[in-house]
Formats: sequence, C-alpha cells, structure tokens
Amino acid sequence: MIEPFDDSYFMRKALEEAQQAFEEDEIPVGAVVVSNGKIIGRGHNMTERLNDVTAHAEMLAITAAANYLGGKYLRDCTLYVSLEPCSMCAGALFWTQISKVVYGAPDEKRGFKTFGSRLHPKTQLIEGVLRDESTSLLQAFFRSKRKK
Amino acid sequence: MIEPFDDSYFMRKALEEAQQAFEEDEIPVGAVVVSNGKIIGRGHNMTERLNDVTAHAEMLAITAAANYLGGKYLRDCTLYVSLEPCSMCAGALFWTQISKVVYGAPDEKRGFKTFGSRLHPKTQLIEGVLRDESTSLLQAFFRSKRKK
Repeated sequence: MIEPFDDSYFMRKALEEAQQAFEEDEIPVGAVVVSNGKIIGRGHNMTERLNDVTAHAEMLAITAAANYLGGKYLRDCTLYVSLEPCSMCAGALFWTQISKVVYGAPDEKRGFKTFGSRLHPKTQLIEGVLRDESTSLLQAFFRSKRKK
Repeated sequence: MIEPFDDSYFMRKALEEAQQAFEEDEIPVGAVVVSNGKIIGRGHNMTERLNDVTAHAEMLAITAAANYLGGKYLRDCTLYVSLEPCSMCAGALFWTQISKVVYGAPDEKRGFKTFGSRLHPKTQLIEGVLRDESTSLLQAFFRSKRKK
C-alpha cells in the first residue's frame, strides 16, 4: 500500500523550511510538527535575523504547534527536523513529551546524542530520513560561506 | 570594601522575578542578565500563561538581553537565575557563550548538571547564591498547589 504521508513526505516539508533558511542566509535547518497527518507548526532557523540563539527551527515549530493546539504538550505529535537537534532543542522536546522525533542528518559535533541532553522516555526517535538531502543543503551553505 | 552590586544583589533581582511568577501562578523561577553592572534582560517563568514549554525564565531573559545588545552573543554578561537551569536552558546558554552563570537552588531532578547538557567551556559557574530563599519560594508554591 502506498502511504502518501509517510516520514519522507513530512521530512521533505522540513527540508522546504531549511531551504527557506538557506535563502535568508541562515544555517539551513527546518522543522515541522505534525498532528493527525496535518502540519500544525513550522519553523526554520532564524538565529541571525532575530539575533537570538534560541530561534532554532525546532523551537519555533514547537512554539507554533503549542499555539495552534492551545496547550504546551505535544503528546500526539511528531517533529520532523532536517538536522539532529542540539541540547537546547532536545531539552525543549523533552518538556513537550512529544510522541516522535524524526531527524535527517546527524550532527556529530553539536547534536544532543553526543553533546548531552536527552528526549522524553516516551518519545520515539527515528534518524536518517532524507539524510543525504539535508547534508547536501548544509554543505552547499557552508561552501557558499567560505567563498565569500 | 563593600560591593553593593555583588552576586547576591543581582540574585535578589532574579528572585523578584521569581516572586512575580509565583503571583501569576507559575512555578516561581526568575532570571536577569547583567552586563557592566546593569540589568539588560529579565524574565520569569511563563510556561502556563504562554502555553509554551520554551518560556522558561532564562530563555526570556536571554532573548531580552540579546535584543538589548543587538547581537546574539552574551560574552561579557552574567545570567542570574533562582533555580539551576534545565537542559534546554543550559543548551541555550551554551550558544550565547555567556561569561558567567549564577544560580540559586539546585534542581537535582531536572537540572542540567545531573540530567544532561552542558555550558560553554568559557562560562564560569557559581552555585548556591541565595539558595535558601529560592528553595523556600519553590516549596511555598508547591505547598499552595497541593492544598488546592
């Protein structure tokens, strides 16, 4: 059976957000929060534009989703994010008690898995969905920066 | 020599923010960011009012300070917070490269020191300033909740 709205489908939406960040000269990371097959929160990295280290894609998507739901918990939701969350974002996801987190590329330097922090015990973690697309976008960004 | 603006002085300002949270029926945690002896950012826990797990005192104070400075790094600043930061807040503080973090009461269950995450290697950490005042306020809050 074909599942049109699978993890790849929503990760592609997160990558569209990442592409948006790229075009705004931000490190290209994007995220969406999905509930019952519907996107209820989106975000892309805005740390430069907002001059704010807390403006990571995941944080903005979490806040948007909680605002949509009218409650701070995201228990029946999934977050799709193109890059492995950092400690801050993993810490925020912990507090939401989100059901599932899906990420694309690993972040071996600053990702929560090596750097510290953890998700909620109830949170299912899926790694590597559209990993190559996410990595390519990040590499293209840093390559363009080095040229400048 | 008397130092009027020492760590206790600014922690008292953080506790005033915590008291404000208490009055708004939020877990009473408060924070201020100080640069050159001046408070440039304040915040108290607003997770209930904003329905947003990311609205911790530290996060709001960091965002306010960065907004004041017009830059996302808080390299010559000190954050005073009445309770040990959680993983999310420690992760945010890491990104700011803040010079110094001073906290009041330890949080053995959810504090970053036991739970995970870490501060920036350049960040000096001071613990236990006005610890008893902070603990008393938290205890009074949870006592009042149990009565309801």
